[in-house]
Amino acid sequence: MELYEKYPLSISNSLSGKKEKFEPLNPPFVGMYSCGPTVYNEVHLGNLRTFTVFDVVFRYLTHVGYNVRYARNITDAGHLTNDAGEGVDRIEERARLEQLEPMEIVQKYTFSFHEVCRIFNILPPTIEPTATGHIVEQIEMVKKIIENGYAYEVNGSIYFDVNKFTEKYKYGELSGRNIEELMEGTRALDRQDEKRNPIDFAIWKAVSPNHIQRWPSPWGEGIPGWHLECSVMGTKYLGKQFDIHGGGMDLKFPHHECEIAQSVGAYGITPVRYWMHSNMLTVNGEKMSKSKGNSFLPRELFNGTHPLLTKAYSPMAVRFFMLQSHYSSTLDFSNEALSAAEKGYRKLMNALDTLNEFKYPGKGKLNENLNTELNKLVAACYQTMSDDFNTAKTLAVLFEMTSRINDFKSGNHSLDSIEETTYNAFKSTFIGFIQEVMGLQEDNVQDSDLLDGIIQMLIGIRKKAREDKNFALSDKIRDDLKAMGVQLKDGKDGTIDYEIE
Amino acid sequence: MELYEKYPLSISNSLSGKKEKFEPLNPPFVGMYSCGPTVYNEVHLGNLRTFTVFDVVFRYLTHVGYNVRYARNITDAGHLTNDAGEGVDRIEERARLEQLEPMEIVQKYTFSFHEVCRIFNILPPTIEPTATGHIVEQIEMVKKIIENGYAYEVNGSIYFDVNKFTEKYKYGELSGRNIEELMEGTRALDRQDEKRNPIDFAIWKAVSPNHIQRWPSPWGEGIPGWHLECSVMGTKYLGKQFDIHGGGMDLKFPHHECEIAQSVGAYGITPVRYWMHSNMLTVNGEKMSKSKGNSFLPRELFNGTHPLLTKAYSPMAVRFFMLQSHYSSTLDFSNEALSAAEKGYRKLMNALDTLNEFKYPGKGKLNENLNTELNKLVAACYQTMSDDFNTAKTLAVLFEMTSRINDFKSGNHSLDSIEETTYNAFKSTFIGFIQEVMGLQEDNVQDSDLLDGIIQMLIGIRKKAREDKNFALSDKIRDDLKAMGVQLKDGKDGTIDYEIE
Repeated sequence: MELYEKYPLSISNSLSGKKEKFEPLNPPFVGMYSCGPTVYNEVHLGNLRTFTVFDVVFRYLTHVGYNVRYARNITDAGHLTNDAGEGVDRIEERARLEQLEPMEIVQKYTFSFHEVCRIFNILPPTIEPTATGHIVEQIEMVKKIIENGYAYEVNGSIYFDVNKFTEKYKYGELSGRNIEELMEGTRALDRQDEKRNPIDFAIWKAVSPNHIQRWPSPWGEGIPGWHLECSVMGTKYLGKQFDIHGGGMDLKFPHHECEIAQSVGAYGITPVRYWMHSNMLTVNGEKMSKSKGNSFLPRELFNGTHPLLTKAYSPMAVRFFMLQSHYSSTLDFSNEALSAAEKGYRKLMNALDTLNEFKYPGKGKLNENLNTELNKLVAACYQTMSDDFNTAKTLAVLFEMTSRINDFKSGNHSLDSIEETTYNAFKSTFIGFIQEVMGLQEDNVQDSDLLDGIIQMLIGIRKKAREDKNFALSDKIRDDLKAMGVQLKDGKDGTIDYEIE
Repeated sequence: MELYEKYPLSISNSLSGKKEKFEPLNPPFVGMYSCGPTVYNEVHLGNLRTFTVFDVVFRYLTHVGYNVRYARNITDAGHLTNDAGEGVDRIEERARLEQLEPMEIVQKYTFSFHEVCRIFNILPPTIEPTATGHIVEQIEMVKKIIENGYAYEVNGSIYFDVNKFTEKYKYGELSGRNIEELMEGTRALDRQDEKRNPIDFAIWKAVSPNHIQRWPSPWGEGIPGWHLECSVMGTKYLGKQFDIHGGGMDLKFPHHECEIAQSVGAYGITPVRYWMHSNMLTVNGEKMSKSKGNSFLPRELFNGTHPLLTKAYSPMAVRFFMLQSHYSSTLDFSNEALSAAEKGYRKLMNALDTLNEFKYPGKGKLNENLNTELNKLVAACYQTMSDDFNTAKTLAVLFEMTSRINDFKSGNHSLDSIEETTYNAFKSTFIGFIQEVMGLQEDNVQDSDLLDGIIQMLIGIRKKAREDKNFALSDKIRDDLKAMGVQLKDGKDGTIDYEIE
């Protein structure tokens, strides 16, 4: 029996607005897609939360026995709205600003994104498709939508015909908007506007020859519309219908709504069974935004350079902090919350070290209450995570387990008072949830500084020992260090230096 | 005056077979392309040498003031020869073997390749284009070659017509082969063979519907020929003619020869001004090959698991080892050579640490010979590297500089006996060449183990001190560690544990 059968999973489906039992189309296989970054600048902390949320979803699905194909895209073309909400090409704009070829911008920020993922222990997805890598497929999908009558051409651009679509299908279901409201909320069309209707959206956009990124198509040179790539790549790698689609809440409308319309317009079938949306990150209670100066880059956290930070925080403390709230809640970022997270993270990791050193001593007198409690804690880890990936509650269970670990350590309880099967399940669950599911690991960033500090301290102790004629100690320090590959060297003016072999 | 003007660069051009003065088309801009991996398995040590060689070329060109656009591709489709030399699709074959979607194979091995690059400090190129990312452009180039009369269609595949090409242009110039020899060296055509001539090569290949990777084209569904992507991406990002193209010697024929033919066939202009080829890696004097069991993966080096290794070697020792020979020479890999490289690397890094601690004390009595010698060494670094990137000779100069650094350290010479400008040039050149040009950095891989060892040792010293009633020492150890964030904790059975905050 697989773990996913023992602890059935439920997911809050944004499409239905309800928590539903998760039933993949073709178990044990699960197809999952989440929206990745547009690689035109550094990802900020809000993006990072989204990537962390779906990293944990991917990790947990895998942990309970599903075979997950997880596609997370890189948008490297066609993102036609800049941060100010204007209709310009993000990558093209940035390329002109930095005086680089668009693909140099793409390479620079893809590399930086991957570095951030590595530092925060966000696993690589199983496929990481790019928009530029699927131009042919995007053109094919546009053709299909035109064939089906849900798109029209104007001056080499192709627009999705929302009114036509709503004659047969629903539009706005995911975001809970109806078409009349949407029409009212949209400004009237300019005379220049090519669209039949303000809520229509481009699926292929003609560009002028001085636009650097552009591709030939049956409608002339252009670029794919931003919403199109996700529909295309989801279909290509996960099928016309697949299990889970995730993304930040801000993508629900229009991006995800348009994805649904495109897929239905092309294939007549709703593409995704479970839509998941992660909530926003606020800073000291306010929405994060560049203009307010409260927008953080991940790097600013662990070097502590942002004016709103009182100190630096390690990547793992930040990861822990993010997991402390459920993905569907807003998460407020403050120095107090981060400092608390740092302590919590350290506490868990120390318990992990302690547990790793335990060995089951053989069975003694059984403490039945304790034995039962530990088994319940093991089950609770799975129950809380299987309840819509509630990392907040799961961490609370892991802290309960930490208290029990410390009881064993201090001698309050003895390991031989529990069953060996209990011991093994408890140990592997605690370790598995921290490392595999939560993705927490040792922060090693400052090891080399600390190492230098401690070696310098030993050099000082040795100097004092020699002054005190305690040669046994001074020799021991020199010899032990040497055995570990650290060679002490006498400098000319009595200073002592060291080399690590 | 830029450094590249002060120390003009020469390159052994594989196309002319001569060492030539390097004159970029449009200085200070340099366009450089090198062939990256086919991401269907782990890169081996031979590949790593090639990537390291062109990393150093990229680094040095940048260091001397050129503005380099460096494209290194990822082959993620269309590589139609497996390791046994048979005409099968490498990625497709691997996908069937591992039971994954081809793009999962691509993701897995691209990630692994990037990890290896990070560990060996190989910089990311400025653009890292993929074959699947340029299907449209490849189809366009095929059309162009057909239009010009140098390719023909058979059953949905397009072949380059070498005979037709040689009516107007040369074929075989780079590899020094003539067309008659090539014809003789090729087996006769099968009856089934679609090609007009055995030396013709596919630039677009029709595939059956059960081939997973395939794209629509004017000639039906198919995949691009392997040689085509490099021509297409070189042209797209660097222009119809660009400065430098690098790759392993094994790619000279047919891959690079075909690249030239394709570009000339499409645009009538030879694509590359300076072709550079890095030589092979041998193991104990023999060619590396999987069947001989002497093929190494980078990872096997630093965990020491390969049966031919007597110990583990750090990534930086391996990098140093590779730089010890000129890129155009074969490089023989043995335990002896690696152990020697390890010592050499350590010696350089120690000199770097020493130099970093020096401060210029103000001018004293000038030692004119020494002052002149140091300035010559600075120039020699540039002269040796500008002479066809001779890392071997440059390292020899850096070792000369190391001796001078140690002279200053031991007091053989005094820093105040050289001019301040000399001091500054010497220091910045030594540091710049080691870190920026050679890309050598501290190996930190075992810091955490060493750290644990040393803390345990301190705990032992403290225990002994307490037994000896040397409370001054035992308290000092506890307090100093605490100040550095290491908290000692008493365990129940007299053991002492620690936590790093």
